[in-house]
Amino acid sequence: MSKPSKSRLLPVTPGDVAAAAEAIRGEVLVTKCDASRTLSEICGCRLWLKFENLQFTSTFKERGALNRLKALSPDERRRGVIAMSAGNHAQGVAYHASRLGIPAAIVMPVGTPMVKVENTRRHGAETIVTGKTLEEAGDFARAHGAANGMVMIHPYDDPLIIAGQGTIAQEMLAAVPELDTLVIPIGGGGLISGIAVAAKAIRPDMRIVGVQAQLYPSMYNAIKREHLPMRGDTLAEGIAVKSPGKITTEIIRDLVDDIVLVTEDQIERALAMLIAIEKTVVEGAGAAGLAAVLAEPERFAGRNVGLVLTGGNIDTRLIASVLTRELAREGRLTQIAIDIVDRPGQLAAVSALLAEAGANIIEVSHQRTFSDLPAKGTLLEVVIETRDRAHLDEVMKRLGEAGYTAWLAGRR
Amino acid sequence: MSKPSKSRLLPVTPGDVAAAAEAIRGEVLVTKCDASRTLSEICGCRLWLKFENLQFTSTFKERGALNRLKALSPDERRRGVIAMSAGNHAQGVAYHASRLGIPAAIVMPVGTPMVKVENTRRHGAETIVTGKTLEEAGDFARAHGAANGMVMIHPYDDPLIIAGQGTIAQEMLAAVPELDTLVIPIGGGGLISGIAVAAKAIRPDMRIVGVQAQLYPSMYNAIKREHLPMRGDTLAEGIAVKSPGKITTEIIRDLVDDIVLVTEDQIERALAMLIAIEKTVVEGAGAAGLAAVLAEPERFAGRNVGLVLTGGNIDTRLIASVLTRELAREGRLTQIAIDIVDRPGQLAAVSALLAEAGANIIEVSHQRTFSDLPAKGTLLEVVIETRDRAHLDEVMKRLGEAGYTAWLAGRR
Repeated sequence: MSKPSKSRLLPVTPGDVAAAAEAIRGEVLVTKCDASRTLSEICGCRLWLKFENLQFTSTFKERGALNRLKALSPDERRRGVIAMSAGNHAQGVAYHASRLGIPAAIVMPVGTPMVKVENTRRHGAETIVTGKTLEEAGDFARAHGAANGMVMIHPYDDPLIIAGQGTIAQEMLAAVPELDTLVIPIGGGGLISGIAVAAKAIRPDMRIVGVQAQLYPSMYNAIKREHLPMRGDTLAEGIAVKSPGKITTEIIRDLVDDIVLVTEDQIERALAMLIAIEKTVVEGAGAAGLAAVLAEPERFAGRNVGLVLTGGNIDTRLIASVLTRELAREGRLTQIAIDIVDRPGQLAAVSALLAEAGANIIEVSHQRTFSDLPAKGTLLEVVIETRDRAHLDEVMKRLGEAGYTAWLAGRR
Repeated sequence: MSKPSKSRLLPVTPGDVAAAAEAIRGEVLVTKCDASRTLSEICGCRLWLKFENLQFTSTFKERGALNRLKALSPDERRRGVIAMSAGNHAQGVAYHASRLGIPAAIVMPVGTPMVKVENTRRHGAETIVTGKTLEEAGDFARAHGAANGMVMIHPYDDPLIIAGQGTIAQEMLAAVPELDTLVIPIGGGGLISGIAVAAKAIRPDMRIVGVQAQLYPSMYNAIKREHLPMRGDTLAEGIAVKSPGKITTEIIRDLVDDIVLVTEDQIERALAMLIAIEKTVVEGAGAAGLAAVLAEPERFAGRNVGLVLTGGNIDTRLIASVLTRELAREGRLTQIAIDIVDRPGQLAAVSALLAEAGANIIEVSHQRTFSDLPAKGTLLEVVIETRDRAHLDEVMKRLGEAGYTAWLAGRR
């Protein structure tokens, strides 16, 4: 099933990964790679998680960035580096350049959340906010870098970056030699390329599956010669990359066994499960691997699967919203509409019934003007909290038995 | 500053803790004890976190429960055990009793969330839901246990339970010998008692500070001979215990240097910071230690402080609510009220102004009937998202400059 390694012909070799491991040793964390009993049970395979979200900057990107920085000549170090990124690559370059005393400028497009700009600055980099799009910001970075003799650090399409990310596979296989499958998110492709080179060198029959967000199937299109559309606002913005790398595409075509797409719903559920079960916070892209296994468990049944929790940089408002939507999906938070007569005591009666049924009322509103009901009727909209879907069904049944016309409204 | 150890006179000895460590070895996790660079910077001391929220049942309570179960005679094992708990003690007893093949019944008061009842059952225990209060459920458990020859397992006032929890201090000091201060949540007092016995035996000048929720200062009252009221619904329900233990009170009086109280606000902030910075999920009680350090940093300035993240069993709806409230506190999510004239185009004008100022509109409502404004005026209530408090101030200034009367409404 898995592709044979031809990695000696590729632009990144297992030796490059070994050299990267040497170069970054002691300067990035060897994160833990723990089995998850509960997720393994749920997925029907043996699952191990590599906690790259616990790196100091909460992203694996430190590895490639540091490996690239270490390869600079003394002269290049003095002149400094430049990178374009609104995300994790910015953090990785800024933090390690500052540690090594290398001047760094990070170009970010206009509209980048202030918190990301400030984090990057706090890590010691100069930040330049310019360009309406990532493309414009990238053009500026290249021009500015060339004009000032600064080395441009690409986020993924660079053999040293790829080799740096590959060190993750070395650590995973050293910790868990029985791994036979790796499920790895793909944005530009740097992470999976490095991992594929390293893992197939250690274990040629390793099965490597890439994961992209269905909204941004760029590498999927490139490898499968498809033309699926790319658009929309994915929770996994860390892998929402429109243009796959040249080097990474070559490596992936050669070494990666398949690429699967995951929906926003699947990413959200995986992220919520990592919080509820593993007590760990990942960003959308960091949940993509688990989302893929949950989406097609039969593909991984009985295997020893390694997932990389790639990063933990997610806005707390997004976490709150993902958790709340998951409660709605589970039938634990539900908006119901009840057709009542518009006279005193009706809300009291409904509230009493709901209380008796064990449902907790979260929000109440009356809708008089915009309902289809006769003028004397009113639509009562209530958001309730129930224990689970069975409890919700019981609550709805009780409302019906008491003579109310009630139905589920809004998203379930 | 710190009390001398008189632990040889106490009902739990350092030898008991060493024996407990032996008894539970390999059957509970030796959780990691990691330094937090960012939290250390924020608090002005060196902070280490012991991740007991990553135990299999997400609570340190496994340690005491397992130590107690291991001490049962063959005859007692056959007859089984009973415990009363709506929380983490239930999980710890159920899981390890089931592992060891010991029949276990857990009594939970009526109204215990179904998810907790089901978790306990899933861990292999019989669950009995009865009693309107914890006290009634406890009475039932004692009677039922006595009638059926089952050993009652107390959640904290038992030397074997206390010794089991003390193993945490052994592990912390083995991992981080430079610790000179431990800040430990107190409910019934089992955790801090065990930790104090173990830690002061290894390092007699260890400073040990207990933390209680201001809403439930039971041990604080007992030790300081105060009569602060106990009431309300604390986020830290794991340490909302009305009656401190007899044994634990004796140990705490002898070995614990001070007890501090933390407010709900402080607990919420600490919980949100652990998610945002450490990417780890704790329950309210698990955030109490950090809350205490954040509340009085001068008390811990320059010290080497160890905190125990005691557990991670928290409802996801509570996490969402804590994170959202923290955004409001930070000035990133704000309800503002704007006095507008009730005619077409007003909402459009305000929306355009807010968009230009970079504020994201989350919710909008008009209030015509219940405002103090003249009949032709309308109150526009808008929930907006801003980057930070400075950005919010700028948005409010722009509204003022455009001639609007606008003010902050609701909680900030």
